[in-house]
Amino acid sequence: MARPVLLLLSASILLAPTLSAQRRPAAPNPIQREYQQAADRIIAAALKDSAAWNKLAELTDGFGHRLSGSDALERAIDWTLARMKEEGLENVRGEPAMVPRWIRGHEKVELLEPRYLNMPMLGLGGSVATPRGGIQAEVVVVTSFDDLKAKGAQVRGKIVLFDVPFTSYGATVRYRGGGPVEAAKLGAVATLLRSVGPYGMRTPHTGSMGTAYDTAAIKIPAAAISQEDAAMLHRMQKRGQRIVVRLDMEAHWLPDSPSRNVVAELAGREKPDEVVVFGGHIDSWDVGTGAMDDAGGVVIAWEAVRLLKELGLRPRRTIRVVGWTNEENGGRGGAAYRDTHRAALDKHVAAIESDGGTFKFRGFGFTGSDSGFAVVNQISKLLRPLGVDSATAGGGGADIGPIMELGVPGISHNVDGTRYFWYHHTEADNVDKIDPRELAENVAAMAILAYVLADLPGGLPRGGKVVGR
Amino acid sequence: MARPVLLLLSASILLAPTLSAQRRPAAPNPIQREYQQAADRIIAAALKDSAAWNKLAELTDGFGHRLSGSDALERAIDWTLARMKEEGLENVRGEPAMVPRWIRGHEKVELLEPRYLNMPMLGLGGSVATPRGGIQAEVVVVTSFDDLKAKGAQVRGKIVLFDVPFTSYGATVRYRGGGPVEAAKLGAVATLLRSVGPYGMRTPHTGSMGTAYDTAAIKIPAAAISQEDAAMLHRMQKRGQRIVVRLDMEAHWLPDSPSRNVVAELAGREKPDEVVVFGGHIDSWDVGTGAMDDAGGVVIAWEAVRLLKELGLRPRRTIRVVGWTNEENGGRGGAAYRDTHRAALDKHVAAIESDGGTFKFRGFGFTGSDSGFAVVNQISKLLRPLGVDSATAGGGGADIGPIMELGVPGISHNVDGTRYFWYHHTEADNVDKIDPRELAENVAAMAILAYVLADLPGGLPRGGKVVGR
Repeated sequence: MARPVLLLLSASILLAPTLSAQRRPAAPNPIQREYQQAADRIIAAALKDSAAWNKLAELTDGFGHRLSGSDALERAIDWTLARMKEEGLENVRGEPAMVPRWIRGHEKVELLEPRYLNMPMLGLGGSVATPRGGIQAEVVVVTSFDDLKAKGAQVRGKIVLFDVPFTSYGATVRYRGGGPVEAAKLGAVATLLRSVGPYGMRTPHTGSMGTAYDTAAIKIPAAAISQEDAAMLHRMQKRGQRIVVRLDMEAHWLPDSPSRNVVAELAGREKPDEVVVFGGHIDSWDVGTGAMDDAGGVVIAWEAVRLLKELGLRPRRTIRVVGWTNEENGGRGGAAYRDTHRAALDKHVAAIESDGGTFKFRGFGFTGSDSGFAVVNQISKLLRPLGVDSATAGGGGADIGPIMELGVPGISHNVDGTRYFWYHHTEADNVDKIDPRELAENVAAMAILAYVLADLPGGLPRGGKVVGR
Repeated sequence: MARPVLLLLSASILLAPTLSAQRRPAAPNPIQREYQQAADRIIAAALKDSAAWNKLAELTDGFGHRLSGSDALERAIDWTLARMKEEGLENVRGEPAMVPRWIRGHEKVELLEPRYLNMPMLGLGGSVATPRGGIQAEVVVVTSFDDLKAKGAQVRGKIVLFDVPFTSYGATVRYRGGGPVEAAKLGAVATLLRSVGPYGMRTPHTGSMGTAYDTAAIKIPAAAISQEDAAMLHRMQKRGQRIVVRLDMEAHWLPDSPSRNVVAELAGREKPDEVVVFGGHIDSWDVGTGAMDDAGGVVIAWEAVRLLKELGLRPRRTIRVVGWTNEENGGRGGAAYRDTHRAALDKHVAAIESDGGTFKFRGFGFTGSDSGFAVVNQISKLLRPLGVDSATAGGGGADIGPIMELGVPGISHNVDGTRYFWYHHTEADNVDKIDPRELAENVAAMAILAYVLADLPGGLPRGGKVVGR
């Protein structure tokens, strides 16, 4: 084997100049020259232990899921505020927001024909109840809005099951709100939805139906069943079997109730009224513990600021951690933040949200001006130890959306999305699915971004063409 | 880039003689010369459609799970026998076996302190009930039998949770039966078990506790909770929190009830009284639909014989498909088969069982004599189109165990095991987890093995050293 190996070696020697030219790092940009040392300290501090994971476990183990209007949410907010104060974060407060209050109540879906089966299910957020005693009806399975139209004549008085195979979240989730609305127009009495996700272990996924449903003239009850059961009912229909289901739901709304956005700061040393706002949402759906959606986003920002404080890295401007309330079924926290801080939005340097999971860090998404995008790209070079060195155009988040509409540049925290929709809005969204090292890397990345944005002498420029919209 | 590429090519030319020597196939063995053509026909026929998957879907969609003593099991057996007759299989019959009948009944486990949580759970097979109203007690979490001993003084009057991380099934499943027995000796009032599996989505796994529990002097109720909840309770204990749980179970035994082994044959053309016996178990746990455990094993053997018949491949000896009953919680089907056929066991060429899942085929495991092992290895060369060309020492199955003890060589059907214990004994063991192509490949492999074993002029030799025990 000696000769071939030597030949291969000589081949690689010949290749060497080309490759090494490709690999030679560019000269450091001004942000790297100024901030690489601080960035490296932040990374080392974030990765030295599992503090972020332990905090996330304590929060989610301690309070469980946190639907708007629930005691658990308010107790989780109390605990978070108290812990932030203990840690010496500054200006710690709850900023009020009234939130809607949807109650799932008892719910059940039973297959009656061709055989009995009590199917795992979750009512969709915002659904109305069934009449007392439930709705018992034949099922018509459809695979798309077009298929619904084609079967329109068969739908009246039936329960429509949307068995839409998962392609992307965006493409599939349209059926969550749109399905019940369209089926109701054709006289359906209820709808079932194949849970929106690429994989499950007989795992239903809930989620909001949104304004399409909330404002519809006719509202019929709507629930998600597992991907497995949806596929099975579809096979039964193909076999020509009569399918009968009984759906029983007590879902209802109560009057709005008071909640709060969690707010804490690291006050700026030179321009404390200028702000980088930074966080995730503290509420969740009423299943699992909402660990990646989105207690993780809150903990990332919280831990980032705690670390900066611990390292003595106080930037020129203020970094404000926010745990928004009511992202999942109303967005009232994001709206309340906008209303509370409306007069100060021109002093908001940027808004950063983490609400896409807490897996392996993949970079930042940016919406703003191209001059600002260039700076975020330069900041991204600081993250090479985390395997990232550039940003992507297009970013934001549901909670920062209202202030982005008023001109604040928005940045999203992007992570590997392979498994996010396995767990999203399910009983399986728990801290054990989150890797402590990956979470710590996210804390490091977000701390560096927030610190540099808040410290840059010239701030984040807003001139030039629009990027990311 | 041209020069380096040329150099790499010349390197690979120099490597070529060595590699090609390694790759040159050995001369065909006598079994290949005799049977490769038949094997190729079988493979082509099995892979031409999704007949096996469709049959498995029809069986599991149609009857659901099939615990011993249930109507669903007996109706599934009726359906299978009728369908086998329709397809023209021979000597189709149910062979009687009395089976135990364990009823799960209502069951629930609630965390009461430090916070309320209704936890997904499954009582372990064979467990006794709690007293009416349930058992409410503090929880002590242990990680092993040694840890249980170390905490022995704290256990009296408590509920013990075995939070044993999954390593292998064999190493971890010991706690399913052994945990409740050992905890009871120390005065525990009930046990919980971290579900036995490497991964879950808040998915409890049931399974039998076996004779260790059934014959124990003191029986306490035992249930599995999800891996996630077990880990959470363990973290709570580490934080010094008091953990209180209420466990409520109605589990109980009813008198034994009649069931049957499903039997169908392709009668031998020369020696019909000599038999290759071949199958899986038709019963399942009372969750999911028992698609991979083990309706798939039954369907593989059934489809294999249907294909042989369709192809006109009638071997010298008889191939007997068996769907054993009651593998999961009693093994009465395997024992009944032994007792019914005791006088004919010296005419059993071999027994083949598929009960390890229906994923990508990986070969056969063999227990018998080294002369027989050599033949099974030669047969394995026929399976090269399926990516397999040898067998491994050590094979068998719970249902063929009783006749293997009386000297019948045993062969197991091995598949990729990466995900088997994700689904095993859970609500997620459903046909959608099985790939139609992989299932068809398993049918092909098993059909070839059974056909050649039944057709070999000299049968399967039994001389020489013991292999696989």
